[in-house]
Amino acid sequence: MKRMISLLACALFALGIFAQQALFSGGELVSPQVNDDGTVTFRLFAPKAVKVEVTGDFLPPMKISTPMGEMESPGVAQLKEEKNGVWTYTSQPLEPELYYYTFRVDGMTFLDPSNVYMCRDIASYTNIFIVEKAAGDTGDLYSVNDVPHGNVSKVWYDSPTLKMHRRMTVYTPAGYEEGRGRYPVLYLLHGAGGDEDAWTTLGRAAQILDNLIASGKAKPMIVVMPNGNPNCEAAPGEWSRGMYKPSFMSHQSPAPVASMEESFPDIVNYVESHYRVLKGKKNRAICGLSMGGGHSFAISKMYPDMFDYVGLFSSAIFLGASNDRQGSALDQMNSDPQFGREMAALFGAHPKLYWIAIGKTDFLYQVNADYRKYLNSKGYPYEYVETEGGHIWRNWRIYLTQFSQKLFK
Amino acid sequence: MKRMISLLACALFALGIFAQQALFSGGELVSPQVNDDGTVTFRLFAPKAVKVEVTGDFLPPMKISTPMGEMESPGVAQLKEEKNGVWTYTSQPLEPELYYYTFRVDGMTFLDPSNVYMCRDIASYTNIFIVEKAAGDTGDLYSVNDVPHGNVSKVWYDSPTLKMHRRMTVYTPAGYEEGRGRYPVLYLLHGAGGDEDAWTTLGRAAQILDNLIASGKAKPMIVVMPNGNPNCEAAPGEWSRGMYKPSFMSHQSPAPVASMEESFPDIVNYVESHYRVLKGKKNRAICGLSMGGGHSFAISKMYPDMFDYVGLFSSAIFLGASNDRQGSALDQMNSDPQFGREMAALFGAHPKLYWIAIGKTDFLYQVNADYRKYLNSKGYPYEYVETEGGHIWRNWRIYLTQFSQKLFK
Repeated sequence: MKRMISLLACALFALGIFAQQALFSGGELVSPQVNDDGTVTFRLFAPKAVKVEVTGDFLPPMKISTPMGEMESPGVAQLKEEKNGVWTYTSQPLEPELYYYTFRVDGMTFLDPSNVYMCRDIASYTNIFIVEKAAGDTGDLYSVNDVPHGNVSKVWYDSPTLKMHRRMTVYTPAGYEEGRGRYPVLYLLHGAGGDEDAWTTLGRAAQILDNLIASGKAKPMIVVMPNGNPNCEAAPGEWSRGMYKPSFMSHQSPAPVASMEESFPDIVNYVESHYRVLKGKKNRAICGLSMGGGHSFAISKMYPDMFDYVGLFSSAIFLGASNDRQGSALDQMNSDPQFGREMAALFGAHPKLYWIAIGKTDFLYQVNADYRKYLNSKGYPYEYVETEGGHIWRNWRIYLTQFSQKLFK
Repeated sequence: MKRMISLLACALFALGIFAQQALFSGGELVSPQVNDDGTVTFRLFAPKAVKVEVTGDFLPPMKISTPMGEMESPGVAQLKEEKNGVWTYTSQPLEPELYYYTFRVDGMTFLDPSNVYMCRDIASYTNIFIVEKAAGDTGDLYSVNDVPHGNVSKVWYDSPTLKMHRRMTVYTPAGYEEGRGRYPVLYLLHGAGGDEDAWTTLGRAAQILDNLIASGKAKPMIVVMPNGNPNCEAAPGEWSRGMYKPSFMSHQSPAPVASMEESFPDIVNYVESHYRVLKGKKNRAICGLSMGGGHSFAISKMYPDMFDYVGLFSSAIFLGASNDRQGSALDQMNSDPQFGREMAALFGAHPKLYWIAIGKTDFLYQVNADYRKYLNSKGYPYEYVETEGGHIWRNWRIYLTQFSQKLFK
């Protein structure tokens, strides 16, 4: 065996792809390196570079002006060139969290060749790292720990409503394969431009559920993460449209034959006929971020007897037929009799939990504030969580962590 | 809905991560662009670059000298700077195939920011693209086509022999979830430094099987892709060791409590107790590349009644106890009585197919040639396929395509 290993080791370095990569990857540089004091050191081998920067959400954000007004953009820090063409930067001490970053070499965004961990958000990749200080902290919850792991499957199901076979991600908790028990189901929806891969990559959903279930803080549950773009069968590259470059609009055109909301029962029907699930609204939860929060808002309203738990994360709350309306979202809600009837039916069915969360600087803050005013005016009960920050995955991971612990109890 | 979409569209560009990436990704550049004549155009926005190159297996290889003697390395081509800081290169017409490439900007390896499709091989990422000319050609077989798709699951199983829970990838063919039928099983093993993700990423195993099954060229089968590193629970980042930088040695140390070969029945036992499988050796096949070919060689020999189909792809064929032996592999095989007994037992069980494939320039060519001499001298029947090229994924995808069509018929 030793002989085989050593021969193969030689071979690896002899092979073009490895030789080439080893040569330009900065060899055995460690980057990022999370230090004991919570600072993080970044290193990049860039002997010919004039300027090397790192940008990411671990740095204090910068204000930028946008079509939507002033918003926040990730901060930027300069790396310094040390000997041998290696550039370095060490951050301030960081709180436990999953952070993203990229390098900029003379203005070009550059993924860290020493870090194989990265996430795609639409067409953008960033490297990621986790700062973890103690068991149960935010970083620990997003880490793969030595606990029983659920299985994660890419599952094709039939959607008669959308007239296509579609791909979704299904998490079955540890013990599902061994046991005979039935489980409640959380339907977890992504945002605009995302797909069925987003919650298990950017969202760390499998790690969050593994860790919360192992510690007894969340009930064992099946988590179903469908594709929320009714014109797409699957994530980019996973269906017959080919290896197209995803863009925000590639998820919106051509127009679908039905809406996500209209087709949602196809998903529930598939899950309940193919998995050992506990049925009935008390065993079903739905939540989502941004567009997926809008979907959760609309789906729970369209099917008031389907879900006992509804979570709206930074939600895009708009009335389906309100495109031409005037006035504030609150005016529209108050002036729409159909909306009023649907909301009366939804809260008439007495959902156990209607949970709304948003960040203080989220561009959807006002419409959510208007919606809460409407709920207050009608006396419809809900729980509300307001956090720092804006329309970002960091908040959505926190919201999933909080919401999932409230389910099926 | 329109209003929600447009608001969200604005928001996306307002958010730091997207704004930042959009700014530096070269905007809407198309790269790579596969042209109608089979040439491929690469584009990169690099206004400050002095030299931009592209390297990959679509270019004529260069000879390099290595510890193993002269070997091939991917070729390199220069991009030319056009207006607006966009650099371009157009290749010669390419045959249908899946190709990999990376850019080099002033000597630094640089992933194509216009191409979200990439694969990891140990610690190296490369972009990929597919050239496809006609239905059924090599590029078509590796593409996601409009055919029924199997499900791909990341499954945790218990290995009592290795004393750990371990992760494997399981492909269930289209129809498995809907039907009640039982299926034969192919055990598909990766090479040194790889993991349970390799065959579904670099190897395009799900696409190859989807397409061959849909066209009737391969029987519907379950494909089990375990992790072949007995010291690892799972792929890098998927177990409690954390987000370590994978290296060839990280897959080899610390020493495992048992070998992959010894623990293999744990995998078969799990699969046969958790999936609707057809049992018995005529319904089991095993194959693998490089180290995984060595595993297939050793496992089929250790358990002569387990598999009717054995495939050795560019295999690392070494005798377990031969580290201190002198002479050629053939001398060692002829002088090892235990090996002789095991081989007699293996071929005494009359496997339906013993299939060996290797490329002419593979560094393992000679040991495979010695092994064939041994088989010939004993009159043990096998099929042999010799291809161009060396120890590369292009060959392993071709071997899987050929081998899988010969199974369970």
